[in-house]
Amino acid sequence: MLKIDYTNVMAELIGEKDGILFQEFEEYKFIVEEIHEKIQRERENSFYFTQLPYQDTKEIKAIAKEIRENFDYFVVIGIGGSALGNQMLQEAINGFNYNNFEFPKFYIMDNVDPEKFGNILDLIDVKKTMFNVITKSGSTVETMANFAIIYTTLKELLGENYKNHFIFTTDPEKGFLRKFGQKEGIKTLDIPPQVGGRFSVLTAVGLLSAAVCNIDIDSLLEGAKSADKICSENSNVLENPAYLIGLIHYIVSQKKGKSISVMMPYFERLSSFVDWYRQLWAESLGKEGFGQTPLKAIGSIDQHSQIQLFREGPKDKIITFIKVENSLRDFKIPSDIPDDISYLSGYTLKEILDIELLGTRAALTKSKVPNLTITIDELNPYNLGMLIYIYELATGFTGYLYKINPFDQPAVEEGKNFAYGLMGRKGYEDKLKEFENLDKEKYTLKVE
Amino acid sequence: MLKIDYTNVMAELIGEKDGILFQEFEEYKFIVEEIHEKIQRERENSFYFTQLPYQDTKEIKAIAKEIRENFDYFVVIGIGGSALGNQMLQEAINGFNYNNFEFPKFYIMDNVDPEKFGNILDLIDVKKTMFNVITKSGSTVETMANFAIIYTTLKELLGENYKNHFIFTTDPEKGFLRKFGQKEGIKTLDIPPQVGGRFSVLTAVGLLSAAVCNIDIDSLLEGAKSADKICSENSNVLENPAYLIGLIHYIVSQKKGKSISVMMPYFERLSSFVDWYRQLWAESLGKEGFGQTPLKAIGSIDQHSQIQLFREGPKDKIITFIKVENSLRDFKIPSDIPDDISYLSGYTLKEILDIELLGTRAALTKSKVPNLTITIDELNPYNLGMLIYIYELATGFTGYLYKINPFDQPAVEEGKNFAYGLMGRKGYEDKLKEFENLDKEKYTLKVE
Repeated sequence: MLKIDYTNVMAELIGEKDGILFQEFEEYKFIVEEIHEKIQRERENSFYFTQLPYQDTKEIKAIAKEIRENFDYFVVIGIGGSALGNQMLQEAINGFNYNNFEFPKFYIMDNVDPEKFGNILDLIDVKKTMFNVITKSGSTVETMANFAIIYTTLKELLGENYKNHFIFTTDPEKGFLRKFGQKEGIKTLDIPPQVGGRFSVLTAVGLLSAAVCNIDIDSLLEGAKSADKICSENSNVLENPAYLIGLIHYIVSQKKGKSISVMMPYFERLSSFVDWYRQLWAESLGKEGFGQTPLKAIGSIDQHSQIQLFREGPKDKIITFIKVENSLRDFKIPSDIPDDISYLSGYTLKEILDIELLGTRAALTKSKVPNLTITIDELNPYNLGMLIYIYELATGFTGYLYKINPFDQPAVEEGKNFAYGLMGRKGYEDKLKEFENLDKEKYTLKVE
Repeated sequence: MLKIDYTNVMAELIGEKDGILFQEFEEYKFIVEEIHEKIQRERENSFYFTQLPYQDTKEIKAIAKEIRENFDYFVVIGIGGSALGNQMLQEAINGFNYNNFEFPKFYIMDNVDPEKFGNILDLIDVKKTMFNVITKSGSTVETMANFAIIYTTLKELLGENYKNHFIFTTDPEKGFLRKFGQKEGIKTLDIPPQVGGRFSVLTAVGLLSAAVCNIDIDSLLEGAKSADKICSENSNVLENPAYLIGLIHYIVSQKKGKSISVMMPYFERLSSFVDWYRQLWAESLGKEGFGQTPLKAIGSIDQHSQIQLFREGPKDKIITFIKVENSLRDFKIPSDIPDDISYLSGYTLKEILDIELLGTRAALTKSKVPNLTITIDELNPYNLGMLIYIYELATGFTGYLYKINPFDQPAVEEGKNFAYGLMGRKGYEDKLKEFENLDKEKYTLKVE
């Protein structure tokens, strides 16, 4: 079950300056229908992620079973869309104590920070580790750098047997990793060519590590499937959760000056869901001067950090609260506590958490900050699958409202090219020259 | 050593629309001098945090030593300004593997999320745990809720001996926790009354847990002291790192439409430093319609998530990169790797990380996104102390540029009051009524 309460984005509650008039939804009726038709036509290409719920998971589950039986550690080497989804599934379903009590222990090498890389090496035994190298392009610098070190280490330790400690996940045809996997006979899983990194969590990219960590990936896809059915059958924004989220954010960003989209779950297991959303929303929509900056906040922690700004700072935000009705465990405040805090007696921590959400939401509504609340009954694979699908579709849909391509990321290349130039990679000599013209150090202040 | 390179915020490099003309600094000369005088006059009250580097740490170190000798676990119960600084010091100096190899293991209960609370209980033995309850007001709801459960649990297990498992950190006179500590004879440390939560990391709030985890708090204060000396002696922005950071952010937010301040360290141990900065900047400056939204990004991870938006989305950001010259360890890419990635050979991970920063920074400069780079030679207590002090002073200074009070947080109360009303706390009946008028659920969409 998933419910979207969008009462507090409406002008009725917070006024026309910050809120949406009901008739504004109507005004977009034809545009939305057009986009809906377009999306239906593109289900096999740009919107291929809509097909993912219907995939056969037998192979992934079989591989996962073998890994569970033969390895104590499972390490993903990937970054961005090849890491954020993995982290999100793991935290959302298995929580924060998994590695303290379960096997195979699961780590993600998602940076070239040498201390982080070293920290993970300190916690694993590479001889008992399966490394899943994930990169759509097959050549991501950070991923290749980590891979190169692990590859050499394993080869030194195990000779040709090193191959049994790698599984690659990459484009079915293109890129170095595919080529190398074929040449060396290393097991390699496909990322469908139509699916970009940030939309790939429900491919082998996210599903393998989830299955290795015993997450019910069929139920995850089942949830995505339910969302797909509802969304592909309804072009009416009031009945389509993805379009509703998309249109609300589009209207407030274009007409009400809300340039920042805050996502604030009151449930810490959703922390990495927000990181995943940050990439999806930022990289898909941030182009041609458009886009909304996604901002992470966690309830109730950030009440004590960000709410002052949200209420009385610039009126540039829309907030999405996420509430989970049932937690896996709970703790009751006893009755035998000092008088001054006895008003807490009888409440559970979860009840207090929910009350904090209600209080904060009312305070924001009072300050005319548009906010919506997504409620799920439980944070289980099914509901997570729905959430993932809805946000992916909302992102694609919103891109079409902005009339931009939500599936590319042209501005990411430049920094990579400068980096290649600096590394002396062949073919990037011009970039090095351009870099040198851009990289001046003229104004500095130094203190000891 | 700390260096601020602000070349890329200057109009010279990125144009007048997005960048600052050198003469704009001049224009603020008298205002800055006025504020400087005001700050000097307020060192004993509003700006009392400037006095903290000069405190005597004997008592804190003695208590920490005793705790280290007698307990296996040390748990802070606190939220916001009573948790973010603790987390920041621990991560920045002790990294991410401390609890895997060191004692006493250190955890923070900073939320009423029952699963998080339970996760920590699963990892500790309360009978071997010292709990440090931290709250300036002495009554923070989340902190009191966690405290109430631990208090009852310890009392049941240990009887009156429970008292030896608590140390309180709170206002010297006001609030429930001080009163209760006095009555029960529980060791209680002071937070100087003039110091608000978000400026309190260099009081007993942050110093005790740091000392318990073997962090050199004297060196931390030494760094803050050096920064204080430089900053109190120089009213010229070009020689005062705090004023420089403050004035740059003020000018771009007021004149160049940069409503978002991104902080992006290329060093994961600084991850929680950004969370600490988020509270400092948001809660201090987000009032009367002013303020800048702080945004966390981590290099190079977020190149694969946010850089598309930063470069081609709305031009509403200023970026602060943080670079650390030396890491504690490093890994070299071997030469015996496949041809396609041989351009990586010979580089270390740290070198690649630094190159990624350079490449990304040049790409942002090319897109006329103002950015500054703070470089420190090492991430040690001394330099961290400098950073902390400089950002605290920059925040207070910037508040005075906005002509607001950077030390209050009036907008945080409303949500708390609604929550009290909902909990049925005496004296909040009106708030409950007001809440009911604000909390409508009229427009919803539900999917199964």
